[in-house]
Amino acid sequence: MSLVDTLTRALGADAVLTGGDMAPWTRDWTGQYRWTPLCVARPADRDGVAAVLSAAHQAGVAVVPVGGNTGLSGGTMAEGAVMLSLDRMNTVREIRPEARLAVVEAGVILSNLHEAAADHGLSFPMTFGARGSCTLGGILATNAGGSNVLRHGNTRDLVLGVEVVLADGRVIDLMSELHKDNTGLNLRHLMIGSEGVLGVITAAVVKLVPAPRAYATAMVAVASLDQALVLLNRLQEATGGQVEAFEYMPRRFVEEYGKLHPETRPPFDQGHDVNLLIELGATAPRDVDPDPDGQVPVARYLEDVLAGMLEDGAVLDAVVARSEAQRRAFWARREAAAEVSTSRPVVLTDVAVPLDKVSEFLLRAEARLAALDPQAVPMVVAHLGDGNVHCSVWIGVDAAGRNQIMEAVEEEALALGGSFSAEHGIGISKRPAMARFKDPVALEIMRGIKAVMDPKGILNPGKVIP
Amino acid sequence: MSLVDTLTRALGADAVLTGGDMAPWTRDWTGQYRWTPLCVARPADRDGVAAVLSAAHQAGVAVVPVGGNTGLSGGTMAEGAVMLSLDRMNTVREIRPEARLAVVEAGVILSNLHEAAADHGLSFPMTFGARGSCTLGGILATNAGGSNVLRHGNTRDLVLGVEVVLADGRVIDLMSELHKDNTGLNLRHLMIGSEGVLGVITAAVVKLVPAPRAYATAMVAVASLDQALVLLNRLQEATGGQVEAFEYMPRRFVEEYGKLHPETRPPFDQGHDVNLLIELGATAPRDVDPDPDGQVPVARYLEDVLAGMLEDGAVLDAVVARSEAQRRAFWARREAAAEVSTSRPVVLTDVAVPLDKVSEFLLRAEARLAALDPQAVPMVVAHLGDGNVHCSVWIGVDAAGRNQIMEAVEEEALALGGSFSAEHGIGISKRPAMARFKDPVALEIMRGIKAVMDPKGILNPGKVIP
Repeated sequence: MSLVDTLTRALGADAVLTGGDMAPWTRDWTGQYRWTPLCVARPADRDGVAAVLSAAHQAGVAVVPVGGNTGLSGGTMAEGAVMLSLDRMNTVREIRPEARLAVVEAGVILSNLHEAAADHGLSFPMTFGARGSCTLGGILATNAGGSNVLRHGNTRDLVLGVEVVLADGRVIDLMSELHKDNTGLNLRHLMIGSEGVLGVITAAVVKLVPAPRAYATAMVAVASLDQALVLLNRLQEATGGQVEAFEYMPRRFVEEYGKLHPETRPPFDQGHDVNLLIELGATAPRDVDPDPDGQVPVARYLEDVLAGMLEDGAVLDAVVARSEAQRRAFWARREAAAEVSTSRPVVLTDVAVPLDKVSEFLLRAEARLAALDPQAVPMVVAHLGDGNVHCSVWIGVDAAGRNQIMEAVEEEALALGGSFSAEHGIGISKRPAMARFKDPVALEIMRGIKAVMDPKGILNPGKVIP
Repeated sequence: MSLVDTLTRALGADAVLTGGDMAPWTRDWTGQYRWTPLCVARPADRDGVAAVLSAAHQAGVAVVPVGGNTGLSGGTMAEGAVMLSLDRMNTVREIRPEARLAVVEAGVILSNLHEAAADHGLSFPMTFGARGSCTLGGILATNAGGSNVLRHGNTRDLVLGVEVVLADGRVIDLMSELHKDNTGLNLRHLMIGSEGVLGVITAAVVKLVPAPRAYATAMVAVASLDQALVLLNRLQEATGGQVEAFEYMPRRFVEEYGKLHPETRPPFDQGHDVNLLIELGATAPRDVDPDPDGQVPVARYLEDVLAGMLEDGAVLDAVVARSEAQRRAFWARREAAAEVSTSRPVVLTDVAVPLDKVSEFLLRAEARLAALDPQAVPMVVAHLGDGNVHCSVWIGVDAAGRNQIMEAVEEEALALGGSFSAEHGIGISKRPAMARFKDPVALEIMRGIKAVMDPKGILNPGKVIP
């Protein structure tokens, strides 16, 4: 019996797609990667996942797990493989408000978890543009980042427990909800960020935090990136660390967004080089309850710091959101980053550098790119508070090799103590960088661990580990 | 040439101890474990560590890394092994205040890092009673917890990068200082908490946080553990999460501490069953700068919440520290936990349960112990804010087996969704529990990873993985 028949018998005919039915699973979000899977298997529960893996393991056929398929590194490319979609496992099993946790299945869409948490006055503080289609399984598999890492950490910092199905169908139950649990080697953190090469995460226990009861959100133009860092530090000092997001959009990004969305207003009457989207979030009465004169204290903290730096000339202009609609408009611009970047032929990069090196990195990267390809246009946007720069590069008709451009950007980040992959993961697109830049002994250990957990190498082959 | 001669030649005669010179390294802090190493090697740098491991690897001789030797699980027991002490690698290499990080060697004593950070108005927010002798290497190797986990997380949450020497002397350089770095399988988290069975951590990049500029510290007697949780939640809501420590000391603990330290005053005029040590920490001007009437706001938040619950009868008594000396006296009592527990023959346990199950756990554990051994006396102290209970058991002359007592306590924790090891790690003492309670597939994967990283099994043999 063929593997497709075996899977159909195990899961039911509706749960195994072939031919044209597979269309949504034959390309990634960027359209840069296209493939034809053997079939798409959509199990309804953990036992179904185990059945798929067990059968594929016996048959020696590759399996590529997929969530919302919104990754930017080609991590779900699955030529000839069983594509294991977790999309039917989409239940928020439990929200425990007192314990501030949620138990979720891997196929839950991020914005659905946001809504479920909000019903209890809580928040799962991981968010980014793809939240309406990306899933918890993908978020965990890639250790996703986003805009609130500054305050709440990366995905791995928000996870208490996971359930994993191994390549051969065996299950590891690590669904702890404890904040202290030192019981041997930490397999949870090994799984998080492993991009489907070690096993398939089927469920998780995640932390929730009190939802902010008041935000202070502003678009701010500053004189330089160095002044932006001064501003970040002053805001953290004034609020005791309540900065939720600190995002950088250069002049070119703001202009291109305006062209794509001519119905929107530019942030300022006049264009500026260094534009920031800043958000503070507050939960405590002393920050949230209006002053005698009607002002929300957290907004006052922001305005006081901005006012001081306006006087100095360090802040050039600032607009504080006066309504939720205005706040959402600020965020819509920032969250269009993937749309703006991919609106022309592009090489995507995702580097991190130490916070105080972002300015130097950008100067060096632009000089390198200009020398490589005079038509190359850096389309930068950054989670500045994390030192995470998305230096996408629009490439000309006679573009230098894509890999050459990517490597040039990554080398400049590494030269400053940075990383060639901050939050998008390795997938296929960063595998050459792994081979070039990662500690070779670390790579050897990764290969050994892969062989232990997936001895036949069926799980997401050709990804992550070169 | 014998291994000792090889090591002496590599490191110098002063750096290799044998015979009576090894005395400080022949027992653990509790005195429960005693051993005779082959020798104690004290390399001065990473290359020295690599030389020791390389030579031992070739000779097939066991190596047991040791820091301050303050562990409570027998993790440094080294019968016939080379004991690899990191104590000479004790330099804080760098403090970078703007980046809020420190670069430290493994042998740095925790309190020395505290002092170095304090010089910059910063804090390394990991602390517990052994801070004057435990080392960063040991803290990382065990993923140590302590009293501030509630606010700042476990050790692993405070580490950005590590440098590791493998069993065969090869080095993995993961000394990142980035907050986002997704470059393959996370070997940093695999090393943290691995208790010396996978490699030797020789240096680390750790996070620092702004040092609190004001504390509000109180001893509080409450009517029940359930009311204690209500109090914790109210304090977190009032302050937006500024509770740094929330520690539980039952009546018996307070009384025994008083007997061991008759020079000290009891916390209250009258004894109470449920005594809490609570500390809030604040950095921002709005919490720290005195009110017009001279009061520090963070102290007012605490007092307001306590006053409300005093009226309800939920809080029975409360004393807020009026001086740093008084604050230190409160902490001295709590940090004498190891001294109090080990003042009689004892079985140490270190379990975690969900926060709202602590009360039920204690009732169940006491009933089990009473049935097992009528002379057994539970000597409890807890990081209540983490659900981490140290239910030590003083054992009678005709004590039931130590393992039987330990297992009884651990079983009751597990029955409530808890863990048999919260923060002390596995070492030798929890190895039977690992065999009994840990997911068997997880154990098999751990054995596989151990074989990849330490194929000859020379690193801390007989520990952690059963």
